[in-house]
Amino acid sequence: MAHIHLTEQLPGIRGLMAFRPETAGPLNALAEVLLRSDEGLKKGERELIATFVSSRNDCFFCKNIHGAVAQYYYPENETLVQEVQRDYHAAPISEKMKALLAIAESVQLGGKFVDSGEIVQARQAGASDLEIHDTVLIAAAFCMFNRYVDGLGTFAPDNPEMYRERARKVAEETGYAGSSPR
Amino acid sequence: MAHIHLTEQLPGIRGLMAFRPETAGPLNALAEVLLRSDEGLKKGERELIATFVSSRNDCFFCKNIHGAVAQYYYPENETLVQEVQRDYHAAPISEKMKALLAIAESVQLGGKFVDSGEIVQARQAGASDLEIHDTVLIAAAFCMFNRYVDGLGTFAPDNPEMYRERARKVAEETGYAGSSPR
Repeated sequence: MAHIHLTEQLPGIRGLMAFRPETAGPLNALAEVLLRSDEGLKKGERELIATFVSSRNDCFFCKNIHGAVAQYYYPENETLVQEVQRDYHAAPISEKMKALLAIAESVQLGGKFVDSGEIVQARQAGASDLEIHDTVLIAAAFCMFNRYVDGLGTFAPDNPEMYRERARKVAEETGYAGSSPR
Repeated sequence: MAHIHLTEQLPGIRGLMAFRPETAGPLNALAEVLLRSDEGLKKGERELIATFVSSRNDCFFCKNIHGAVAQYYYPENETLVQEVQRDYHAAPISEKMKALLAIAESVQLGGKFVDSGEIVQARQAGASDLEIHDTVLIAAAFCMFNRYVDGLGTFAPDNPEMYRERARKVAEETGYAGSSPR
């Protein structure tokens, strides 16, 4: 049971967004601009960073919903998301994505953990300033979303099918900035 | 020097916001709704939570700018912000604020660190569900802002007067949602 009395019994962040629409607006707008763009990083790559950081923060709801959205964009490899969560160094992703996930891994620990060597490595693997920026901000934003969801003790369904269906809807129909809470 | 090539040499988050206006919009809107309201928590209390969490995350820019804004709202006690940052248990603030800062302290470590005993204590000290919600989200949001500012290696001025002047401007004129980056 959540730590506060939520008006609607919706899973994860969705119940919080129904409780406090004033903050839901900017939070959804942030998720939309960070995750639903193909400029620089592709949507699937952005969601991989989101689920990876959520996994490191042990946030069941965010890890699973953004894992399901990421997986939606990689239909050719059914285990990609799990591989990235488990050991991204060994996952079948580009060197650029590995270098960006190393930066995200540092951001999850704290901003000062990012060192210039990691930035040089990402740049050498072809990452642009925009891609480095977006990686840091996606990782930082999920350090917020994860703490919001777990800090208020929200519930999360166990059923993987729920996440897959929700992911399809986010990817194909609503995105994150729709008027209804995600 | 920042890890990426910023278009404008502005301190802290401001250079990042000028570099990426697409994400600056929702970030500023979030700061505005979380920090510039007196519904439940007062503006000064919201800024105290922001500077406290930034202090725990060792983010010099955020700690100082939000510390200066918090101090603006407590003109009667020139050392209040430092006292809260150093040891909020001993600071001259209400029992409710102490209980909410204990929740913020847990959120800074991670969402799962918040336990129901802390929530009960806050409620017994008079905190509403809205105040508990906003405390968790402010603390979570500064775990994002701090990582964003430090993860991209931005610079921060040393001069306390710069922070005081900026704080006065935010409090009296612009807020956080103005068209110019803060």
